[in-house]
Order: sequence, then structure tokens, then C-alpha cells
Amino acid sequence: MRIEFDLQATDGAARSGVIRTPRGDIRTPAFMPVGTAGTVKAMMPESVRATGADILLGNTYHLMLRPTAERIAALGGLHRFMNWERPILTDSGGFQVMSLASLRKLSEEGVRFSSHIDGSKHMLTPERSMEIQRLLGSDIVMCFDECPALPADDATVARSMQLSMRWALRSKEAFGDRPGHALFGIMQGGVTPALREESAKALVDIGFDGYAVGGLAVGEGQEAMFGVLDYAPGFLPADKPRYLMGVGKPDDIVGAVERGIDMMDCVLPSRSGRTGQAWTRRGAVNLRNARHRDDPRPLDEACTCPACRNYSRAYLHHVIKADEIISSMLLTWHNLHYYQELMAGLRAAIAEGRLAGFVADFHALRAGGDIEPL
Amino acid sequence: MRIEFDLQATDGAARSGVIRTPRGDIRTPAFMPVGTAGTVKAMMPESVRATGADILLGNTYHLMLRPTAERIAALGGLHRFMNWERPILTDSGGFQVMSLASLRKLSEEGVRFSSHIDGSKHMLTPERSMEIQRLLGSDIVMCFDECPALPADDATVARSMQLSMRWALRSKEAFGDRPGHALFGIMQGGVTPALREESAKALVDIGFDGYAVGGLAVGEGQEAMFGVLDYAPGFLPADKPRYLMGVGKPDDIVGAVERGIDMMDCVLPSRSGRTGQAWTRRGAVNLRNARHRDDPRPLDEACTCPACRNYSRAYLHHVIKADEIISSMLLTWHNLHYYQELMAGLRAAIAEGRLAGFVADFHALRAGGDIEPL
Repeated sequence: MRIEFDLQATDGAARSGVIRTPRGDIRTPAFMPVGTAGTVKAMMPESVRATGADILLGNTYHLMLRPTAERIAALGGLHRFMNWERPILTDSGGFQVMSLASLRKLSEEGVRFSSHIDGSKHMLTPERSMEIQRLLGSDIVMCFDECPALPADDATVARSMQLSMRWALRSKEAFGDRPGHALFGIMQGGVTPALREESAKALVDIGFDGYAVGGLAVGEGQEAMFGVLDYAPGFLPADKPRYLMGVGKPDDIVGAVERGIDMMDCVLPSRSGRTGQAWTRRGAVNLRNARHRDDPRPLDEACTCPACRNYSRAYLHHVIKADEIISSMLLTWHNLHYYQELMAGLRAAIAEGRLAGFVADFHALRAGGDIEPL
Repeated sequence: MRIEFDLQATDGAARSGVIRTPRGDIRTPAFMPVGTAGTVKAMMPESVRATGADILLGNTYHLMLRPTAERIAALGGLHRFMNWERPILTDSGGFQVMSLASLRKLSEEGVRFSSHIDGSKHMLTPERSMEIQRLLGSDIVMCFDECPALPADDATVARSMQLSMRWALRSKEAFGDRPGHALFGIMQGGVTPALREESAKALVDIGFDGYAVGGLAVGEGQEAMFGVLDYAPGFLPADKPRYLMGVGKPDDIVGAVERGIDMMDCVLPSRSGRTGQAWTRRGAVNLRNARHRDDPRPLDEACTCPACRNYSRAYLHHVIKADEIISSMLLTWHNLHYYQELMAGLRAAIAEGRLAGFVADFHALRAGGDIEPL
């Protein structure tokens, strides 16, 4: 079985559909929780599924260093290893090697670096990245690319993008023909339309199962990101999924979906959950704040996650202050649940042609802020 | 409804039965997981229940300091606060104030101390301990006592025990008449039979709903502890539950049950779960050890907990090494599951008059140690 994208509805530039894989369907627009090192932090995989997630993201860089891709392969692959039998997308390692590893040396061949864990030396190339993602058993494999930090001048961005396009071709050749597994290309080109178009054309010439918009969410700000998303998805084939990497806050997600993005991933909901920050329909709520200390009300009375159904804000505040693990468990669960509810709401609104109203309500409720203190 | 103890079977000195409370039955011998500060660390309360726990222990010392008993009462009591609707036993705070607080000053009245969290000054007396445990809504309340460190000379132990007996009377008077709630006395007297007997008589004269054997598991070693348990339970009324506080390792528990103990609590299974130590039928297994790195086998192939059903030793090793929260979640679950399975096995063996065989099998399997490395 080939991985197929069934585009079912559009509303303006926004799209809804289903990516069909041998490991199950992925409803789009989809938000992918991040399972960095073989776990979505503080969550059991069955709980991640209960929030509505159809697919997880795994990080090639982390897994290649520990426990290693070869070890995971010998143990039956990443799905069995981490007890998640549904689809997994893996990044290529390219972005994280540039942000986490030390002693990096970039060449035409790839990136040589030292592990941030034990200093051991490694080399990532398009070919090695494809091999690692194959060993992990990833369902959706990402091309190995280079992502320059923004702002950068056009010449730098162009040079980097053209290197990534040569690496995309090498990735495609190394990936080969693997029925049931997809390979996505990654568009680069910074905030320069001509470079984005050049990158898209190069990728479409090679031909991929899906296309990512890369090089965003790297500090350029929401306005610049939306500026690129106003035109860049239009350079990509309408019949393939479009993936915006590393995004984002709820309003980033809504804006990206409005602009034609089908898939996203971000550590934000899980990372926030470990710092006492909750994401709700009414915006961000810092449960560490003393205003919640005596508040018997749930975080969000309309939310059906365990944190909201079974606990008061006072309890959540208490376990955060006491540094109890259950605070990470409950808030991560809530945040992932909220993100998946938001995606479900977006999908339904697109399917029913009422996205503009949904988005207006989304912003209006957030503008009102959190419920009043007692 | 009064809390009642239904003693159903004996096998030698060992007993099995049920403590009936308005919040549900407690099957004895019972192991009570410790929910120190309103959470059994790294566990959802529904998961604690799924391991087979009928009752939790809450710590008066921790809760009185944060979030405070008054706050918990205003929020509807500890059960609602922590989402555990079954029975809760609370300790008196006496033991932990002596081990955790600073600037302690002991007098006939009680103990004055400074909080280990913020240095604030507090006083615990029998009357205040009863008030706090009432505010928490505890089902089984413990008398406020003083527990001397062992070894200590007889005169010291006697003075301390006699103070605890005066405090036991004040506890009883302060507790009053609270249908549906039980008050347990705590026997002291160190390792001296005459002092244990004197303490037991004093308690029985006052009259309690159950009796704890206190002052053990404080560093005296298993042999000395079993030495006391060989005679001390016999000083207590047969028709009331007997509770051994702060015990223990699996072999401590088995030995205590053989000697007539009905209830125990210990942080060990949960604390071990946060350090990579698992308790199994074959003894302790340190999953941090490199021998597990490539081992595809479950921790215990006969165990039905999620850690054993869904993950390899290699995965557990990986998430421990990577300091992932799921390692605490899975190992705590396994350890609590194992402890509850052990209790269920002990209860069935006592009920069927085959405890000696059960205990022999328990020791024989442990003597063989963990499964061979691959």
C-alpha cells in the first residue's frame, strides 16, 4: 500500500483531508505531538492517542545518539520500542544537529558533529539520514536539509537552499522505493519569494510524497512567517500534503491552516505542560500564579481532559509548586488535548465551509482572556 | 456507619480480612501506597487504583505546610482535592516533623518547629494533629506520637513511650466521636518487650479502632524488627486491625504478615520507581544496568502491568538513562502493581491455609535472582 493523500474539502486556501497509511489514517490539518527520544514527555502513548493524535514525530538526531537507530531496529523498530503502533514521522536530524550538537562542520557531503550527550563523533549526510529513518521504521521520512538562521542575506539563504536541494535529490535516491513509506521534500528560501519558488520547483522536479515548508519558526516572528505562508504553499502541488515544521502556538496553527498547511508539529504543548503553562480556548494560563491557589474551578470547564474533569485549578497550582510529576502529566495531557480539539474544530469548519467564522470565534474568545479570579 | 474490621481467616499468626468503611472496603493484609503531598508520585490516582490499592496514605506534615489543611478543607477535603474517592489514612505528622522539620522543640505540649519549605513556624500537638486530619477528611486518623531513633537506652525509650501514651489519650479526647472515621493508637516501646506490653495496655485502656506498631523501620534492621513482631502483635486485641508503619521491602512485608500484621505503608515502591529500581518476583532489578540495554524481554514476563506488557527492558533502560518522566511513570506503576499482587497472593494463601508454602515459594524464586542476561 502506498501512502495517499485524500484531499476532501477546501475553504479559501485552507484544506481538510486524510493521509492514508498502512498504520492508520491521519486526519488533516493534523498536529503531531513530539516524541523526541522515544516518548512524548510525561505521557503514556495510549494517553497521547486518547487526546486525538493520529501521528507522532520522532527526532532522528536524539534517537541516533541514544539508544541508536541500529539498536531500535534490532528491537523491532521505533513503533514497537515506544509502544505506538500508529504512524510516525521522523525529522532528518538536520535542524537539530545545527541547534544541539557541538563542533559542527558543514560540507557538501553533510554535517560532521559531536554528540551533546557524550562528545562522540558522528556524520549526518542525506544517505545516513535515510538509513537511520529506515532503521527506525518511520512512516513519513524527511529529506536531509540545511536550515539557515534568519535573518540572513539573500546570497546566504540562496546558497543554503541550493545545497538543501542537492541534498533533497540525494535523499530521494537513497530512500529508493519503499511502498507504505513516504518521503517528504523540504522547501527552503527564507523570506524571499523568488528563492521559495526556485526551491519548490527543484523539489517538484525530483518528486516527493509531500512537501514541507522549512526554514520558518526559527525566530522570524509570526508576521514574517505568515508573510511567507501567504504565497509559498501555492508553489507546491495541491494534491500532496504540506507540512509546516516546528509550529507552533495555537494562533500560529490557525493562521497556518488558513494559509493551506496540512500538518504541523511542535514541542510547545508538552514543554509548556512541564512549566505550569496551560493553553486553553481563552489563551495561555500560568497556573503557577498565586491567583489559582484557592480556586476550586477547573482549568477550563468545557474541556473533557482528565486535568479539567477531575481537578481544580487549586490542585494544579499545588502540584506545580510542589514540583510533583503529576503536574507535568496533567498539564501535558491538557495541552495536547486542547491542541487536538483545536485541530478537530478546524477540520470540521473547513469541511463545512465555515472556517472564517470559526477563526473569528477563536480570536474573540482569546481576546477576552482567562476567566476572572474569584 | 462505623468502620469495622471483619477478620475472615487466620493461618498461624497471619490474618486476612476486610476493613469496611463508608468509602469502600480495604482488603487485608493491605499495602498502602504513599501519596505524600496529595499525589502518589508519577501516578494518576486511577492508575494507583488499577494496581489494586484499596487505600492511600497521606502525610499530615507535608499537607499542613503546603497547601495547608485549611485550604484543602475549603476545597472539599483531600479525597476530592487529589481525585481519590476511596479510603485515605493520614499519619499524625509526628514522625515526619522529627525527620524533616528544622528547629524542633519537643515539650509535653507537643512539637514546635520550622517548615523545611519556607522556614515558617508551626506547632503540632495531639489536638492540632487531630484538627488537621479532620480538615483533610482522613478516614483513618493516627494518634500523635513521638518516635525515638533506635538504638536508645531503655530509660529514653520508656520516657518517650509514656509521653506518646499521654498524647494518645489527648488524641482520643480531641478526636471525639466521628462515625465513619477511625482513630488508631500507636504502640511504642522500642525493642523492649516490657515497654511494648506497657504501651499496648495503655492504648487498649483508652480504646482505639485499630493499633499501629510504631517505632520500627527506623534503622533497627530486619532481624530486630521481626524480633519485636514475634511478640508485640500478641499484646494487641485480635479483633482490631494492626498496622506496621513505614514497612517495607517485599521480604519485610511477607515477614510482617506472617507475624500478624494487617496493614503497611512505604514509599519504597514509588521512590524506587524514580531511580530505575524495579521490584519483581525474582527480587530487585536495577534497570539502569547496561545488561538491559539490548534486552527485548519484558521486565517480568508474568506481570500484567503496562511496563511489562508493553515495553522491553531495553526501552525501560533507555528512558531511565535519558531521564524521561515516563521511566518514573512506568516503574512506579510496575512496583506498585507488584506490591499489590504480593498482597493479593498473601491474602489468598492465608484464606486457603497455605501461607507457609506461599512464603517458601516467595523466598525460593527470589533466591534464584533475576533472569540470565541474554
